[in-house]
Amino acid sequence: MANAVVFGFQISAIIRIRDALAFATHSFFHENEFRLIHTPIITTSDCEGAGEMFRVTTMVGEAEKLEKGEVGVAAKPGIPQKDGKKIDYAADFFGRQAFLTVSGQLQLETCACAVGDVYTFGPSFRAEHSHTSRHLAEFWMVEPEIVDADIQDVMNWAEAYVKYMSQWLIDKCCDDMELMADKGCIDRLRMVASTPFERISYTEAVKILEEAVKGGKKFDNKVEWGIDLASEHERFLTENEFQKPVIVYNYPKGIKAFYMRLNDDSKTVAAMDVLVPKVGELIGGSQREERYEVIKERILEMGLPLKPYEWYLDLRRFGTVKHSGFGLGFEQCCCLRPALTTLETLFPSQDTQEEQICN
Amino acid sequence: MANAVVFGFQISAIIRIRDALAFATHSFFHENEFRLIHTPIITTSDCEGAGEMFRVTTMVGEAEKLEKGEVGVAAKPGIPQKDGKKIDYAADFFGRQAFLTVSGQLQLETCACAVGDVYTFGPSFRAEHSHTSRHLAEFWMVEPEIVDADIQDVMNWAEAYVKYMSQWLIDKCCDDMELMADKGCIDRLRMVASTPFERISYTEAVKILEEAVKGGKKFDNKVEWGIDLASEHERFLTENEFQKPVIVYNYPKGIKAFYMRLNDDSKTVAAMDVLVPKVGELIGGSQREERYEVIKERILEMGLPLKPYEWYLDLRRFGTVKHSGFGLGFEQCCCLRPALTTLETLFPSQDTQEEQICN
Repeated sequence: MANAVVFGFQISAIIRIRDALAFATHSFFHENEFRLIHTPIITTSDCEGAGEMFRVTTMVGEAEKLEKGEVGVAAKPGIPQKDGKKIDYAADFFGRQAFLTVSGQLQLETCACAVGDVYTFGPSFRAEHSHTSRHLAEFWMVEPEIVDADIQDVMNWAEAYVKYMSQWLIDKCCDDMELMADKGCIDRLRMVASTPFERISYTEAVKILEEAVKGGKKFDNKVEWGIDLASEHERFLTENEFQKPVIVYNYPKGIKAFYMRLNDDSKTVAAMDVLVPKVGELIGGSQREERYEVIKERILEMGLPLKPYEWYLDLRRFGTVKHSGFGLGFEQCCCLRPALTTLETLFPSQDTQEEQICN
Repeated sequence: MANAVVFGFQISAIIRIRDALAFATHSFFHENEFRLIHTPIITTSDCEGAGEMFRVTTMVGEAEKLEKGEVGVAAKPGIPQKDGKKIDYAADFFGRQAFLTVSGQLQLETCACAVGDVYTFGPSFRAEHSHTSRHLAEFWMVEPEIVDADIQDVMNWAEAYVKYMSQWLIDKCCDDMELMADKGCIDRLRMVASTPFERISYTEAVKILEEAVKGGKKFDNKVEWGIDLASEHERFLTENEFQKPVIVYNYPKGIKAFYMRLNDDSKTVAAMDVLVPKVGELIGGSQREERYEVIKERILEMGLPLKPYEWYLDLRRFGTVKHSGFGLGFEQCCCLRPALTTLETLFPSQDTQEEQICN
């Protein structure tokens, strides 16, 4: 089956569109003098501090050799243990625990502080058990990091980048987009490319949603200040209320990551999400917390260990610069154009989500 | 230390050069109408059939939770076992064993047969215990796959690509290259960009080396038809014999991968390596074996299981097309210009090779 699928004309069109968006991405950042950085894929830091991460190990393979009797009989099957109880990570390839990255952001911040505006475009991984089209175990991320930029600047950059990609597709990929199941995609791209994005604070967004509920609108998920917006809320804002892309900013600190800059109200952080009609959240970004004491406090507050972040804290400890950045899930961005019902078909040569990851 | 290193002017120059080479790569393939494919990073097939691969698993994390008593007491610590002996991979995230890719080539071949010329540019992984500058656990690879191309065509493409990158650096990065320790790098790039590469068969290469030995040249490694060329042999060919890049082709089948096309002599395969003075092997490529019976035989001959390659064999089973491709280790290619003594400094924010992989 797999190869037959690849020959489908829609799949070929998607390959060309995805290729075009990748080249548009590199062109956009190059024209704006960003430098591409390949951030590490194998990592010991968890950027988000909460994601389910994949382990990278050679211990399981070693355990298998023991099973097969390839190693001396004295060795016991199973993964190496310390004191007969704990897993002995010192016996692993890197001499400690290693994971697949969930984001290159923290390393990117280091580079931005050294050479100016940078971006990365590489794979990211989440070991969440989910088989919806919104959660992939493996996906590509575009992440720029911009120096001397605050939350307003990063919203400007995010909007400029999305408009640039939309215009690129309009200019170069109309033939391929006409092959897509979603016949409204070209019109939507024209709207995204030409309309200024609405910008509202999270607090304003909650007010709008609460007003809608009062007016009789029914949501499955609760609307309340302090709780994250659900997909249905985001869609209501972009598709009903404003009918264009909306940037929501200044989220409650409790629902956002430790590295986002605490606002003066001490309740919200300088985070922003770009929401697009029919797509949902396309981009998440923030101004980074540059104050040493504040970020250290935030790491501890979230119950994270300090040690793996010491190298990152060094960026503040010895003086720093204001900087901001965002991340875009590239598979979501491919949805921008044809809005296929699932993401699975974006990966050629694989039939099911499981196959998709594992060929 | 780490951050201080990043601020070094040489490191900043290398970041800019690496960025330039990445953009040159995308530009080269786009100008020639190749499509970028993001091949899977997590995989179940071993392209080379011999590499040491990293496991990707959530079982070790689960085992740790058991240790901590986070799961019911009935569950036993350690990784799940079947029949009390074998590791139960069905209990892992993907329901079977999964690895980090060593190459995107096999998946790329599927795409090439569907949409024409394609390339991938992504991370690759090797779990070999080695701490020399020539072996990295994590590195980026550029891999094009070209349809209707034989071994001669792929040599032409490889030479054109290397010349394109060299010219790009000469045109855009001379200021940065002047900061490099290796003062000869700009002259060498000029030579690479302007001189036709020498092309000799493996058999001719061995003859030249044997003649050199007869003439009194001493090598640490044996020269004999059937054994792979050592670095010192490659350097002799490029730096002494020809004083320019050399492409060696038609290697003995015993030292090359199963997917390379068997030549009519039944002793050699249509493989080629691009060797560059001071750099060594920069590119390895081949015409792919398109004959179903021959490639199946070669897989079995090399002691590999057929099952994980069935999807790949499908490409031949139902009719196929002649195709060829090559791979370039991007970190080696960065060496093309400043020829730093180690690769470590190419990765900012990390001090040692271990740190390099694991931040």
